[in-house]
Amino acid sequence: MKPLILVTNDDGITSKGIRTLVEIMQELGEVVVVAPNSPQSGMGHAITIGEPLRLYETHIFDNVVEYECSGTPADCVKIAKHYVLLDRKPDLVVSGINHGSNNSINVLYSGTMSAAIEGAIEGIPSIGFSLCDFNEDADFSHAVPFIKSITESALENGIPIGIALNVNIPARSDLPIPGIKVCRQAHAKWQEKFDYRVDPNGRGYLWMAGEFVNFDTEKEDTDVWALDNNFISVVPCQYDLTGYEALEKLSTWDL
Amino acid sequence: MKPLILVTNDDGITSKGIRTLVEIMQELGEVVVVAPNSPQSGMGHAITIGEPLRLYETHIFDNVVEYECSGTPADCVKIAKHYVLLDRKPDLVVSGINHGSNNSINVLYSGTMSAAIEGAIEGIPSIGFSLCDFNEDADFSHAVPFIKSITESALENGIPIGIALNVNIPARSDLPIPGIKVCRQAHAKWQEKFDYRVDPNGRGYLWMAGEFVNFDTEKEDTDVWALDNNFISVVPCQYDLTGYEALEKLSTWDL
Repeated sequence: MKPLILVTNDDGITSKGIRTLVEIMQELGEVVVVAPNSPQSGMGHAITIGEPLRLYETHIFDNVVEYECSGTPADCVKIAKHYVLLDRKPDLVVSGINHGSNNSINVLYSGTMSAAIEGAIEGIPSIGFSLCDFNEDADFSHAVPFIKSITESALENGIPIGIALNVNIPARSDLPIPGIKVCRQAHAKWQEKFDYRVDPNGRGYLWMAGEFVNFDTEKEDTDVWALDNNFISVVPCQYDLTGYEALEKLSTWDL
Repeated sequence: MKPLILVTNDDGITSKGIRTLVEIMQELGEVVVVAPNSPQSGMGHAITIGEPLRLYETHIFDNVVEYECSGTPADCVKIAKHYVLLDRKPDLVVSGINHGSNNSINVLYSGTMSAAIEGAIEGIPSIGFSLCDFNEDADFSHAVPFIKSITESALENGIPIGIALNVNIPARSDLPIPGIKVCRQAHAKWQEKFDYRVDPNGRGYLWMAGEFVNFDTEKEDTDVWALDNNFISVVPCQYDLTGYEALEKLSTWDL
């Protein structure tokens, strides 16, 4: 039996990235799509509480069972696993291809990766794919063979329990991609700047903008280093947030 | 100089939980509140992308500088650090007191904890407090001395770099609280059930509901065990999601 592959994303079901991903996955297994009906970038691991969800069968792709959902990327995985696919557990969850990088700290804000992590929570091997190009018409063609081979490896070897893979792919350029690096999440953050403006009704509002700051510039074992050197980065991400080293330090507190 | 304490939450600036937290923090330092203007439960680490934010000074608490923000809990911490408090970095970020538990896997979905983790990303000692009682009029009184002593310990000892504390407090009951347990995140998940209904216009919709499943029932070192035994749980949470043990396994893949 061909593996059952659940495809989702955070840019919405009509985006070019998920179309490319569906095409790749159709070569590897039976594909079911459950994806948001609108862009959900930056949604992190949000889920819908206190409001109902809409779920409609749709026909954007050829020969694929697909549903569009009003919820977040994490909602899509939950509804796929616990409503759409009650008869058969997916063998793989893939999310993306995201239009834009999800390296380092961005994994926390990423709807793409939260969908993959939700898959891992469900005990399903799960991978999030992102291209370092925010353009809605980005060129994904160079990414295709790499995404295929990483997915085949995951289907063959499995993914360690409790882990989802965060795969980032450099934007298309004239430079060759020297290979795939398994690496750690760089220590980095956003240094925000807020731009104050006044609307036509005289009320103030703020645009969040900012600069990316990498604290790991000297280190060669991070995803940011890999991408800066045109490698594809693969970071294993866990949903057990416990800081085990910190447990000991806290035990000395007089609580 | 008294420590500068930033207070936020995910239930919204008018909720009883944040009022209680502000009262406690006023005894320990100078308080600034930047909190959502509406409930943001389940928002996880969502941030606002592609839309501007509203931020207004408000006067819900006595003698406190406070702002209500249209964004998510993580947005509130970003806007506090990089717009409201440009002259002085907070010495502590506290988030909550959440109306409802944020133990185990719930840390990922929690706006309360994502605000605390955002504080840790900014290099500020940060704590999320939650009461295991969803009632909007929940009784927080028994939690007050524990929250005060945990906060004092954090101000005195600092919190390890890269870590935010996830503190959960049992709901008020006749049982005594035997103490505070430093512990790990239990391995658990939600087993969702979706309840299909039809709206008055004939269109279907789904309510997400479900059952909490704890896979760590035999283990006594988890937050779920602590809370089940009426302890207060303290879990150190890290934002480096790298699964270091998995790095080695993945290195054997032929990529």
